[in-house]
Amino acid sequence: MVGMRGAYGGSGGGYNGNESRPLGGKAAAPTSLAPPAGEIAAMGVHKVAPPPPRSTASKMKARVKETFFPDDPFRGFKGQPLGTQWLMAVKYLFPILDWMPGYSFSLFKSDLISGLTIASLAIPQGISYAKLASLPPIVGLYSSFVPPMVYTVLGSSRDLAVGPVSIASLIMGSMLRQAVSPSAEPLLFLQLALTSTFFAGLVQASLGILRLGFIIDFLSKATLVGFMAGAAIIVSLQQLKALLGIVHFTTEMGLVPVMASVFHHTKEWSWQTILMGVCFLVFLLAARHVSIRWPKLFWVSACAPLASVVISTLLVFLFKAQNHGISIIGQLKCGLNRPSWDKLLFDTTYLGLTMKTGLVTGIISLTEGIAVGRTFASLKDYQVDGNKEMMAIGLMNVVGSCTSCYVTTGAFSRSAVNHNAGCKTAMSNVIMALTVMVTLLFLMPLFVYTPNVVLGAIIIAAVIGLIDIPAVYHIWKMDKMDFLVCVCAFAGVIFISVQEGLAIAVGISIFRVLMQITRPKMMVQGNIKGTDIYRDLHHYKEAQRVSGFLILAIEAPINFANSNYLNERIKRWIEEESFEQDKQTELHFIILDLSAVPAIDTSGIAFLIDIKKTIEKRDMELVLVNPTGEVMEKIQRVNEAQTHFRADCLYLTTGEAVASLSVLAKMTKP
Amino acid sequence: MVGMRGAYGGSGGGYNGNESRPLGGKAAAPTSLAPPAGEIAAMGVHKVAPPPPRSTASKMKARVKETFFPDDPFRGFKGQPLGTQWLMAVKYLFPILDWMPGYSFSLFKSDLISGLTIASLAIPQGISYAKLASLPPIVGLYSSFVPPMVYTVLGSSRDLAVGPVSIASLIMGSMLRQAVSPSAEPLLFLQLALTSTFFAGLVQASLGILRLGFIIDFLSKATLVGFMAGAAIIVSLQQLKALLGIVHFTTEMGLVPVMASVFHHTKEWSWQTILMGVCFLVFLLAARHVSIRWPKLFWVSACAPLASVVISTLLVFLFKAQNHGISIIGQLKCGLNRPSWDKLLFDTTYLGLTMKTGLVTGIISLTEGIAVGRTFASLKDYQVDGNKEMMAIGLMNVVGSCTSCYVTTGAFSRSAVNHNAGCKTAMSNVIMALTVMVTLLFLMPLFVYTPNVVLGAIIIAAVIGLIDIPAVYHIWKMDKMDFLVCVCAFAGVIFISVQEGLAIAVGISIFRVLMQITRPKMMVQGNIKGTDIYRDLHHYKEAQRVSGFLILAIEAPINFANSNYLNERIKRWIEEESFEQDKQTELHFIILDLSAVPAIDTSGIAFLIDIKKTIEKRDMELVLVNPTGEVMEKIQRVNEAQTHFRADCLYLTTGEAVASLSVLAKMTKP
Repeated sequence: MVGMRGAYGGSGGGYNGNESRPLGGKAAAPTSLAPPAGEIAAMGVHKVAPPPPRSTASKMKARVKETFFPDDPFRGFKGQPLGTQWLMAVKYLFPILDWMPGYSFSLFKSDLISGLTIASLAIPQGISYAKLASLPPIVGLYSSFVPPMVYTVLGSSRDLAVGPVSIASLIMGSMLRQAVSPSAEPLLFLQLALTSTFFAGLVQASLGILRLGFIIDFLSKATLVGFMAGAAIIVSLQQLKALLGIVHFTTEMGLVPVMASVFHHTKEWSWQTILMGVCFLVFLLAARHVSIRWPKLFWVSACAPLASVVISTLLVFLFKAQNHGISIIGQLKCGLNRPSWDKLLFDTTYLGLTMKTGLVTGIISLTEGIAVGRTFASLKDYQVDGNKEMMAIGLMNVVGSCTSCYVTTGAFSRSAVNHNAGCKTAMSNVIMALTVMVTLLFLMPLFVYTPNVVLGAIIIAAVIGLIDIPAVYHIWKMDKMDFLVCVCAFAGVIFISVQEGLAIAVGISIFRVLMQITRPKMMVQGNIKGTDIYRDLHHYKEAQRVSGFLILAIEAPINFANSNYLNERIKRWIEEESFEQDKQTELHFIILDLSAVPAIDTSGIAFLIDIKKTIEKRDMELVLVNPTGEVMEKIQRVNEAQTHFRADCLYLTTGEAVASLSVLAKMTKP
Repeated sequence: MVGMRGAYGGSGGGYNGNESRPLGGKAAAPTSLAPPAGEIAAMGVHKVAPPPPRSTASKMKARVKETFFPDDPFRGFKGQPLGTQWLMAVKYLFPILDWMPGYSFSLFKSDLISGLTIASLAIPQGISYAKLASLPPIVGLYSSFVPPMVYTVLGSSRDLAVGPVSIASLIMGSMLRQAVSPSAEPLLFLQLALTSTFFAGLVQASLGILRLGFIIDFLSKATLVGFMAGAAIIVSLQQLKALLGIVHFTTEMGLVPVMASVFHHTKEWSWQTILMGVCFLVFLLAARHVSIRWPKLFWVSACAPLASVVISTLLVFLFKAQNHGISIIGQLKCGLNRPSWDKLLFDTTYLGLTMKTGLVTGIISLTEGIAVGRTFASLKDYQVDGNKEMMAIGLMNVVGSCTSCYVTTGAFSRSAVNHNAGCKTAMSNVIMALTVMVTLLFLMPLFVYTPNVVLGAIIIAAVIGLIDIPAVYHIWKMDKMDFLVCVCAFAGVIFISVQEGLAIAVGISIFRVLMQITRPKMMVQGNIKGTDIYRDLHHYKEAQRVSGFLILAIEAPINFANSNYLNERIKRWIEEESFEQDKQTELHFIILDLSAVPAIDTSGIAFLIDIKKTIEKRDMELVLVNPTGEVMEKIQRVNEAQTHFRADCLYLTTGEAVASLSVLAKMTKP
């Protein structure tokens, strides 16, 4: 419509086809000044161009590229000499080569401090999380030694602190315990854990190599908030065993069986254990609170766990508390990780279990690792390549599974401490690993008297941060459906099981997306007076119906899932509109604005043809506005067989369509 | 932008802010005529209005209504007196009351002819399909007697011919045979079939009552074409047993085991059977061909099966062919359907199996019934209410399961014959049922000598029509992904199993829809010179980049599945664009056109805030254009906590945004 200005520009007010006025329907009085036949051509209506022709192969290529390589990781390679390309490829695979050459002493100082800080967190947490997974405590320390070294070489995040994490430990333990008892068959259990770790690494690396990283995007924020909170509660509940000193604890995880077990064994409660546990829990939570309140004191909560371990060990040692009902870790062997590739178990009896466990823990830990990496990269404004990170984390776990480590990833709490302590590069992981190495070599005997109750308190203090009430409130305020997803994930984890809670939440999220396609938004549009802008009548009160026209905008791809709905809904709209407009003028034109229809499939094309026939049977005309590239292409292809959509029912803008159709209507029905 | 005309309308050429020209970036030479400060206000830029406030409850209500009652079935009820409303409700539930009162003799004549025609098809097909489901042949006739009567009362389609169908029979037989052998335990097998039918009816009626009819829309045309063709081949392969006279036939269904079985038992092949089978098959296919070529001769193919049965039975009787290796049906009892509610088996041993069988056969047969109903309704231009049809078909099967019938629905082939024979109302079903009744009461002894090979030939001739080569070609031409879905459904059915082939095809279809959300289309838009139309640069060659601006249109809901992708992709676009534009002017404004974003969730909002911050860090400005109702609402809600999106970064059209921002840029950077 605006193109008119070319023809009428000089004539001042001129013919203003945009304003809402009764159009030339049968019932409308013909204007005395019937426009000349040449007017429509003179109006400079813009044609809907077919998109530039492309072969199926090139379209496929473009789609594959956009699906799997949206970040175009090799775009810097173009136009470089071969040698440089090789160098860039090596640097791409080993990000350490990017920062190592320019590494300086001042950077090292920062990394040293942050590395030591996270080591003080990693040692007690490593031991605790291994116990959470029903594994020997030393496996937790092994896992804080080799994987961080691997990550330093392969990883592209500067802030990620690598090691075992609570939720993956919980899930691995609970899934494997369903088949094998860790107390009855500890070696088999360890073998299964290592094999699961191997599969987890394989899944993670494959996702990265196959560039399927977007799969973890299906765990939405709402799902994760609910899931994390539920898992935190499940993990905390498990610590009641250590915290209350119960010996015969349930092996189940749900809220109900655990609480039943706790109150069924009240006789086993040990007041010494409870007293010690509560004291250290209060201390840890207070330290956490201090660090949240004054972020500069981040080291308070970072050092509290190690301090707790040291103090409690001393207390036990001095008062011989192990004889007063306080259970202790006991003897731990010194020495570094032993190779464990011979322990991987590909026996068909347990293959299904280990693969499933690997898949679930792999995806969950990957989600945490990637989210942590992205968060801190965004804070420091550098890029983290999701797919490359997946390969790094995956390889780290494959290597880990061959060196007595169980599943590891970037932990949120430790990475936050790392970041706050001022880490500059992944070197802080190396410092941490070396500190753990020293511990493994020389300090293990010191943990003999460490009481289990303190490990429980450390876990609770660590996971309590996963319960994010403000995020839940934000989700509630923003989006009620997201809130439902969040609650379902939470309730599912607490009452059913960790995996099923997650599955339910993902299912609801996907169902919601499908529903948006199945019942797409459609708007009846009207003209904003004095312009050629057309907008939703319900949203913009100043928008007015154009009499004689029904202008519908569809906001979704048209496909098998919605073509029946669209068909029936549009028919109903025409009936209702005909009924309303009858009073003034008849309905003559149905305009479908396809601007917001990104794609159409065969069912969608069938729907367009069908609705066109229906509309023509009722003596009206269907007009399509602004079909995008793919839609236009398919319309062309339909026209090759039989011309369903002639050029005169395709317009570039609603304004132009309304203007030239009303001129046409006036000419043909004087 | 167009609103400017209000201010500049009279001045002829005037100030034309739409034309593409270097905008006032830092590098651009300032125009000597810097616009006055009041200009922007005078330009009459339209504000983005917040949508009219609605409570969560009313929004929920609207969404629920649009999801479950898109056809608004009770809209005619409004404003009617209570008595009329009651009458309308009864008529809604029993559509027979709609047409019965006005039923005339001339309508009856048409229905009589078409009813007799479809009866001649229903009797041999009923017997054949029952054998396909490994049920006694008489159950097929029972199923052509009671269900059509029920449908006549409840159904709203005038053309549907109700009875057993090939694919549902195949699936039911194959699923139940996995657990129970029909030859070893015929009574148990029948009980399971009846129970499955009961559950199928329950599922169908529930889908209708709960208004979940859209679930069958997820079986897209492409899926169905592939599935039907595969099922037709599987069904035909099963007939090789009868056609070749093999006694020891495999119980499996796949292409490979059936062919292996056929060639493993070549000694059992009986030349008499093969000769008879081939002759009748050629006769039936020829009749089918005649009816397709000359549609007026529809009765040729309609009567051919019955003719085959009569002729073959006579031949066997006359030549005592049963003694020469031709197997016959054998003795059938006379009499109508016996009540069978006492045969329904809700034993826990088989409950899972019957429920699953009921679910699968229920949904498959529903899909066929609804599709057939819609097809003929569209031909005769009347409406079929999908959900009401589901209730009718479901109740028909529940009643059927209590009267010795197995699963029935509207069959495509028989309905086509019904339509061609000129049926006017559902009364033709009653005529058919009465004819079947007469057969059941008096003619059953005549089928004693009917050879099984003819039944096999009848099935093959019936299902061959399900292989729709032109449709496959059309799908291939229109949409390669749909073609893939079609091929997967076909191959899955043939090589794996009927249910899994279907599941794979549905899975791929849904995955494709999800991928459209996960990797949404984004377009870089440019200005079409001399207008304020902005269109995809790749599609419209006449569209030109506006220097200083990057205009991106997003075409999908923004949610958890794509917010990471959008974030990274937009950043990459900004980098690439900055790089390209450096030569002339710097990039100043990123415009996101949200016209085609129907919805946004919490992850999406987080993405908008994040990308805004990123853009501001790079000294550019983010502008949102035309957020729709829901998106605008969420932006408002975000602003309540902290004003992220001020009114001056929200515009109603891209044209207005470009015009006023370039004026602004000129003013602030002279």
